[in-house]
Amino acid sequence: MESLTVAGIRLGTTCAGIKYPDRRDLVVIEAAPGTRAAAVFTRNAFCAAPVIVARTHLAAASPRYLVINTGNANAGTGRQGLVDAGASCRTLAERGGCRPEEVLPFSTGVIGEPLPLYRLVTGLPAALAALRPDGWIEAAHGIMTTDTRPKWASRQLTLAGTTVTVTGIAKGAGMICPDMATLLAFVATDAEVNQALLQQVLAEAVAESFNAITVDGDTSTNDACVLLATGQSGVGIPAAGEDSERFAATVREVCSDLAQAIIRDGEGATKFITVRVEGGRDMAECRRVAYAIAHSPLVKTAFFASDPNWGRILAAVGRAGLADLELDRIVIHLDEACIVREGGRAPEYTEAHGQQVMARPEITIRVELGRGVATARIWTTDLSFDYVRINAEYRT
Amino acid sequence: MESLTVAGIRLGTTCAGIKYPDRRDLVVIEAAPGTRAAAVFTRNAFCAAPVIVARTHLAAASPRYLVINTGNANAGTGRQGLVDAGASCRTLAERGGCRPEEVLPFSTGVIGEPLPLYRLVTGLPAALAALRPDGWIEAAHGIMTTDTRPKWASRQLTLAGTTVTVTGIAKGAGMICPDMATLLAFVATDAEVNQALLQQVLAEAVAESFNAITVDGDTSTNDACVLLATGQSGVGIPAAGEDSERFAATVREVCSDLAQAIIRDGEGATKFITVRVEGGRDMAECRRVAYAIAHSPLVKTAFFASDPNWGRILAAVGRAGLADLELDRIVIHLDEACIVREGGRAPEYTEAHGQQVMARPEITIRVELGRGVATARIWTTDLSFDYVRINAEYRT
Repeated sequence: MESLTVAGIRLGTTCAGIKYPDRRDLVVIEAAPGTRAAAVFTRNAFCAAPVIVARTHLAAASPRYLVINTGNANAGTGRQGLVDAGASCRTLAERGGCRPEEVLPFSTGVIGEPLPLYRLVTGLPAALAALRPDGWIEAAHGIMTTDTRPKWASRQLTLAGTTVTVTGIAKGAGMICPDMATLLAFVATDAEVNQALLQQVLAEAVAESFNAITVDGDTSTNDACVLLATGQSGVGIPAAGEDSERFAATVREVCSDLAQAIIRDGEGATKFITVRVEGGRDMAECRRVAYAIAHSPLVKTAFFASDPNWGRILAAVGRAGLADLELDRIVIHLDEACIVREGGRAPEYTEAHGQQVMARPEITIRVELGRGVATARIWTTDLSFDYVRINAEYRT
Repeated sequence: MESLTVAGIRLGTTCAGIKYPDRRDLVVIEAAPGTRAAAVFTRNAFCAAPVIVARTHLAAASPRYLVINTGNANAGTGRQGLVDAGASCRTLAERGGCRPEEVLPFSTGVIGEPLPLYRLVTGLPAALAALRPDGWIEAAHGIMTTDTRPKWASRQLTLAGTTVTVTGIAKGAGMICPDMATLLAFVATDAEVNQALLQQVLAEAVAESFNAITVDGDTSTNDACVLLATGQSGVGIPAAGEDSERFAATVREVCSDLAQAIIRDGEGATKFITVRVEGGRDMAECRRVAYAIAHSPLVKTAFFASDPNWGRILAAVGRAGLADLELDRIVIHLDEACIVREGGRAPEYTEAHGQQVMARPEITIRVELGRGVATARIWTTDLSFDYVRINAEYRT
């Protein structure tokens, strides 16, 4: 996929030596004056220092710069962490000619170690010198941690005869179970969007993308997703109506592309699994069932082994804690193969068919609860030897 | 540990070929007339057919026989599963000279495959012929699935000058996260205990033992724990008072021994981890934090790697969903090493000390929340390559 430039946005990436030498680990994103920003952050109670600072700055001003480092999360770093995050904003503001509140800081990497502020600050001039409109892919590299691939997505739509672009980058492979927020993702558009609509479009897009994925059920301390709207295409998005909906759909597609890229690059992932729960009383209970399946180590290892051990899926549905679940109404499919009906194995199910489905690299588990009309869909990975290896070796 | 006989209890084990030939897979436990029984069962909504039948039978009569097969869970088997569980009880009742309601069935093994009823039924005569008072260890072998070791525990106490014995066996290594119930455990005593007290003693013992362990967060469809009191020691346990408390403590010890044995034999386990959460507003929130830590694949892989990556513990506490958590009050210890204080790394913490603690085979994580006086304690395992191997290979 091509990475399309967004008028009003420039990105600069450099190697600041924050954790390793000669690794791209510092990114600056510059937004033209007049850019509006919307953001969602982690709900982990131990949110990182840069999350706290970014939230405060965003409430005070529209951002001119985003500064992102990898190699260190600046989380669990107490008061010194806040001082360090603030200092990185002040230094960038001085060089960029703006106020510190117009800078938003983001960090990702190991938790609990002091931010190497000196290296970050001394890397800033190189990152600023590297700023260019087509710096998206370079920046996607610059925010990676255990990711094996950079992740970006681009979409265009035509509104009133003018082309509007939405481009985004994201990182994340482990500690992925965003809670009303997300990992690190930065999306920009050249449309002009008012603040309320921008936040609404982002919230809806995140709900269906970053907030609907899990690798390991662990919610990061540093999740953040920012949507920038520079307005430089000259196209204004109305508060409601068809154009507004088409724009929202485009942002949703970019976020979904990025969220899927994160799952495909999930730590040790060998399979891409969609869990779809239908016929629930409300979306919350559908999500509860979907996550009970997606977080089950037994379901995940069965997928890794391509073993149609569907009893593990059944057990996960049963332990999701839904009151008055009527087992006789539950139907479970693996892709087109019906495996469970009326609380037991479907009569037409054959082990051969189950094995054929499980051998596929992408599989959909569909659970019908038969007690309402609500649905939910999430994406997840299997659990492989490599997940254990990556997380046993990381940091050591 | 010795396995002490319990007057009034005989156990018989045989190889019925339910899943594999020449493997002990069928156990009959006989209780003398007059025995009282208390039981707790899984709360998984998809509870297995034998659980449904055992619950019904227990409500109708005191059990004379328990019949337990491994190799097949008789879960997710719909109406046929109920018919098969009932048939195994009827057959045993005919041979044992009692009513079908006086037989309780239990099954463990693969979910979703029809129970090989014929093999179970044809194995019953051999199991009955093998009945003997000292058959506990043989029976502990006969209920194993992925367990690598049989699990039993015995305790005695003297009441009014007479010795009372409590002996139990249990199985379980994976799909371990009992919810108000437990895996398979069978405990017996020769004390005479009234029905209400017996159920109360069991419920309290289970809460602190089987209901306080997790291997993988997956609650089984077949969990069950039975406490039998034959009364044949001639010692009656009063409804309240010191003797009653001493008896309850002894049952608790036997259940804790068995629960710890399950964790030590947890699938792929290389470490025994105690998670203790103190200073909470109520026990429920302490347990929530404890399970968030114990279920985190990132925390578990860090323990497998003996890596003091305490940021992962911090992140797990943060995502447990406690409202108004004051980060400044939180203190986290790994054994004697204080790692977190005031929301950041404890000043006295050193990586060398952390590594020294993490190298131990048994480690306690202690989290102080600083907002109340409630506590909770659970036991869990690490997450190793072998957990993935065992569950990827199981069934294939």
